[in-house]
Amino acid sequence: MKNEQILLKSRPNGTPTEENFEFKEVNVPDLKEGETLVKTLYISVDPYMRGRMSTAKSYVEPFEVNEVISGGVVGEVIESKSDKLKNGDKVTGMLGWQRYNAVDSSKVRKVNENLAPLSAYLGVLGTTGLTAYFGLLDIGQPKEGETVVISGAAGAVGMIVGQIAKLKGARVIGIAGSDKKTAYLEKELGFDATINYKTTENLFKSIKQACPEGVDVYFDNVGGAVSDAVTSLLNDYARVPVCGAISSYNITSLREDMGPRIQPKLIKTRALMKGFIVSDYAPHFKEAAQDLGKWLSEGKLKYEETIVEGFKNVPQAFIGLFKGENLGKQMVKVTHEE
Amino acid sequence: MKNEQILLKSRPNGTPTEENFEFKEVNVPDLKEGETLVKTLYISVDPYMRGRMSTAKSYVEPFEVNEVISGGVVGEVIESKSDKLKNGDKVTGMLGWQRYNAVDSSKVRKVNENLAPLSAYLGVLGTTGLTAYFGLLDIGQPKEGETVVISGAAGAVGMIVGQIAKLKGARVIGIAGSDKKTAYLEKELGFDATINYKTTENLFKSIKQACPEGVDVYFDNVGGAVSDAVTSLLNDYARVPVCGAISSYNITSLREDMGPRIQPKLIKTRALMKGFIVSDYAPHFKEAAQDLGKWLSEGKLKYEETIVEGFKNVPQAFIGLFKGENLGKQMVKVTHEE
Repeated sequence: MKNEQILLKSRPNGTPTEENFEFKEVNVPDLKEGETLVKTLYISVDPYMRGRMSTAKSYVEPFEVNEVISGGVVGEVIESKSDKLKNGDKVTGMLGWQRYNAVDSSKVRKVNENLAPLSAYLGVLGTTGLTAYFGLLDIGQPKEGETVVISGAAGAVGMIVGQIAKLKGARVIGIAGSDKKTAYLEKELGFDATINYKTTENLFKSIKQACPEGVDVYFDNVGGAVSDAVTSLLNDYARVPVCGAISSYNITSLREDMGPRIQPKLIKTRALMKGFIVSDYAPHFKEAAQDLGKWLSEGKLKYEETIVEGFKNVPQAFIGLFKGENLGKQMVKVTHEE
Repeated sequence: MKNEQILLKSRPNGTPTEENFEFKEVNVPDLKEGETLVKTLYISVDPYMRGRMSTAKSYVEPFEVNEVISGGVVGEVIESKSDKLKNGDKVTGMLGWQRYNAVDSSKVRKVNENLAPLSAYLGVLGTTGLTAYFGLLDIGQPKEGETVVISGAAGAVGMIVGQIAKLKGARVIGIAGSDKKTAYLEKELGFDATINYKTTENLFKSIKQACPEGVDVYFDNVGGAVSDAVTSLLNDYARVPVCGAISSYNITSLREDMGPRIQPKLIKTRALMKGFIVSDYAPHFKEAAQDLGKWLSEGKLKYEETIVEGFKNVPQAFIGLFKGENLGKQMVKVTHEE
């Protein structure tokens, strides 16, 4: 049987382009004992993957040139040499960007499509939801009545952060890059105020106006000038979970990511900033997934997906992340009749 | 009886000068019930006081123009209308920069000059020692074998931080601004390596060479380019207690304190940065003071003082802090025969 793969052809210099990716046709390998063959149904594309395309040291190993890129995937078992999984089972895991993955059954997790649509396991019930949950609740620790500001608020993580913060009784302000996004955050998700950072005349003033009592928690998905403005408004003992810095992922020189140094503000406010990665919280995934599932089933947590169809569109969907094209979780639905 | 005071004449623009201060002669006021009259023996001058000379929001109220400046003072009770203190008692507290302070006895703390010289109560056994203790042990949490880097290492706080880190089994690297200082840190205090940031050709390379296994704890007293270099070498899960940013205290515009943004590094390493102020730890002062006193009596903690004599020299001693003139704790000994 034929398989189709997406390889990293070359490391991006700045923003990735389609030329950094290569499609390759190979044969599906024979299964070893304990392995199953998973047909890809959904592929997740995430900003953090840009980091793995560079050689710079990071929390995950870089992708190798001429090798298959890997990330979050949901698929269906179509052949199994494991007694833990059988044909028809739906599973998720960190798998290759390819139509078929032959993997040890311990590398994937079975999901229940009666509880939520399969795509949700790449988003609100997957890494995205867990990232929002732990960053906000473990580092941010919002208290009732506090002000929580979220950048990249209409992204997959941001919109879940905002809803959890609302559940905890905080006042929630979202920063996003289009009026469509800010309208969605206010009308559909109940954010208390929003700012379109692309059209506002004065970012600092807009945030200050939206946060008359300052900022207690800043959930940072973007870094850059947006974060400079928000952090200048931190209150005493503020907490800043640093989740992403999408504004800096495609720079080619450190000199492009300069801003006012944060130290004087941290001293004045005794604020805390901390980077994190969701896998650090693996021992607590189960309880978090239970909370997220419960909120979802109670209708307290909404989510949004931007789903592109077609395996050939995976690179373009990934590149689109850096143009801010997605509302909520960006993924690709893979059909196999194409 | 005549009293002499030092007032803030005008707010400094950039580095303070003698013209920002004014000496004034007044009468010592009559004591009210519960008050004592304290004759000043030692006045502490500290970098953080620069912040109080500006109007910018900070963790302490700004000094008012035309009012007496206040800070750490050790003195002797020479008159008392309190049953808690009697003539001859030595006390310390946050008092005015003046020869005599009439204060409620609850505002000062009695000190024991048999345990340590009086000046030590402004340093290793006072705010300085407590700042080092809590910043390093509560936020930095150095573990045996880890690498601890300290900027402003030959300052009052820095040299205590380094010695406590050594007591905890860490490898300690100090950054300071003269060969005299770095020699003192290595020879007298047992620092494992030091860097003179003023004479090194390449700060980043020097730090990297001194920290072949990266940086686990960075105790930051200075901010600026020194901190840019150290934070670029943070290890996974590093901790950065942000204690001071002396390099930025005298800037007149935010544009003068620009550097590479820290967020991408925090994400990659999941590092933590936190500002703090010693008064946040007030409930735990007693146990910390016991530890510091014990280490001092066991000879495990050395300290250094730079003592200028003469009340008239207080402004100059303060200004000297920003030229890096002091080794260890800078203070002024006030004599009353002058």
